Amino acid sequence: MKLASLRRGTRDGRLAVVSRDLSRCVLVPGIAPTLQAALDDWAELAPRLAERAAALELSGPHADVLPFDPAQCAAPLPRAYHWVDGSAYVNHVELVRKARGAEMPATFWTDPLVYQGGSDDLLGARDDVPFGDEAWGIDLEAEIAVITDDVPMGTSADAAAPHIKLLALVNDWSLRNLIPGELAKGFGFYQSKPATAFSPVVVTPDELGAAWRDCKVHLPLLSRINGVDFGRPEAGTDMTFSFAQLIAHVTKTRRLGAGAIVGSGTVSNYDRSRGSSCLAEKRTLEQLESGAPRTPFLKFGDRVAIEMLDEAGRNIFGTLDNRVVRAAH
Amino acid sequence: MKLASLRRGTRDGRLAVVSRDLSRCVLVPGIAPTLQAALDDWAELAPRLAERAAALELSGPHADVLPFDPAQCAAPLPRAYHWVDGSAYVNHVELVRKARGAEMPATFWTDPLVYQGGSDDLLGARDDVPFGDEAWGIDLEAEIAVITDDVPMGTSADAAAPHIKLLALVNDWSLRNLIPGELAKGFGFYQSKPATAFSPVVVTPDELGAAWRDCKVHLPLLSRINGVDFGRPEAGTDMTFSFAQLIAHVTKTRRLGAGAIVGSGTVSNYDRSRGSSCLAEKRTLEQLESGAPRTPFLKFGDRVAIEMLDEAGRNIFGTLDNRVVRAAH
Repeated sequence: MKLASLRRGTRDGRLAVVSRDLSRCVLVPGIAPTLQAALDDWAELAPRLAERAAALELSGPHADVLPFDPAQCAAPLPRAYHWVDGSAYVNHVELVRKARGAEMPATFWTDPLVYQGGSDDLLGARDDVPFGDEAWGIDLEAEIAVITDDVPMGTSADAAAPHIKLLALVNDWSLRNLIPGELAKGFGFYQSKPATAFSPVVVTPDELGAAWRDCKVHLPLLSRINGVDFGRPEAGTDMTFSFAQLIAHVTKTRRLGAGAIVGSGTVSNYDRSRGSSCLAEKRTLEQLESGAPRTPFLKFGDRVAIEMLDEAGRNIFGTLDNRVVRAAH
Repeated sequence: MKLASLRRGTRDGRLAVVSRDLSRCVLVPGIAPTLQAALDDWAELAPRLAERAAALELSGPHADVLPFDPAQCAAPLPRAYHWVDGSAYVNHVELVRKARGAEMPATFWTDPLVYQGGSDDLLGARDDVPFGDEAWGIDLEAEIAVITDDVPMGTSADAAAPHIKLLALVNDWSLRNLIPGELAKGFGFYQSKPATAFSPVVVTPDELGAAWRDCKVHLPLLSRINGVDFGRPEAGTDMTFSFAQLIAHVTKTRRLGAGAIVGSGTVSNYDRSRGSSCLAEKRTLEQLESGAPRTPFLKFGDRVAIEMLDEAGRNIFGTLDNRVVRAAH
């Protein structure tokens, strides 16, 4: 099934079941008012939501059935309790390190790299994304994320798969020119990783069919900048750590609460003909090829679109299409 | 006023108003079911909660009035949307760097250091705290935190003060032996910063009277390990960055949602006779004095208590008193 959170003047939106073709939806207050409420009691409520989703596929016009409009979508979880983002495409990390002449420790191939993100302000798929200054080096990061139920501390990769309840696409906006100074301080990202944007809908793994296997998504992740194709890497090909392995890593010393979001990091392929999922990677390739990056970071007014199509060309998650704008302050 | 979240078999607890002397409390479902709900609509609900608190001070025995039991308290926000912890006592950072022979950049005195913490699993003041292995180097960090309402992006330090709605005490449990490897990877803390514990109650700034000024708390923060006094640094003395300055730093590139928690980092004084707020600092001092640390990290079964008394010796936040235990898995 596919779910969305429609803006209705509330902080958490209103949960809606969305038709598979993304044309129609229905609010489900009788089952759960919000996506977080559904995740809090997923074992009980997911079958009822699935039943409603099946009925929506079969139903004709009805007063309860609304046209589905991604512009009315908040992030599926407009605020979440946990957002941890991996860097599971290690070829990307290796490339970026190579460009700055830094060795990559061999353990990066066996020990996942993650960062804790801020989760109180997650952006909808059509929200304008405000930044204070173009000089901060505004970049996209096209990714995939999973949403879990409650996951105990010490969960193994083998035991992690059933905890993956939903999938989403993510644009993990990054401020490249703030990163070096911030990472040099030693405590990781904060200012350099502002609010993250999410696809209009989240989907249960079964919606991906055979493309969901080994806890990876075996489909290309498409991104466009101002309408021009930017990247289409195969998300399943070079993912060093599966989502199950990422969950095992993050639960080593903590449990995860229902609704925790675990990201893949920038999707990237060794096959450079497939493009990139962030400008930083493209600029790194340019630097390695010709000594200097040519492609600028994003400017106010630029638009970034991210989506994923199934093998028949159908849009799975809806399209993120956010505009970069100057912050009001 | 003082507020707590009583466990009642729910994920977010039930909001209670607590008497100033921490002896009695009353549930307030007619005003707000949870602390998050109160913070979501603070301007409207805080006056009603304050009115209920004033009535509680005057009331005699009544069916609604319960004895206040810190053992029944979840964290005030059992799960929160944002937890960012500063390192505002720069003398502590300087000391730790000195011990490992590392220079501290001069900008550390002017540019706050913060890390993004996990917030989906915050621990109550009397919860057992599970860890997988004593060899991870289990440590306390006694701190103060503030809780905000909605704070816009780009808020200045001058404008930040009115956004501080509540204060709490914190034990930011740390796994010292996991930190070097994790920080060497460059993305900051994750496994090395497990679930954080909070005081039984949160208080509005006016409860601190004259001890709350310049957005700092001018009182000693007391900690004990297994009943033995460990530290009593003055929290107002060597705090390089006030909570207002920390909020200005964290809102440079993002807004904060209602209920965001901003921590001070380990409270520490230049005056070493006042003890420390974490074992790492004590071990560093031992190393500088005699070439090697003598005090071990915590063992399973150890208890850590943290509290703050006002000038008349009255307990302000209640006492954190957590036991370190072996994780069940």
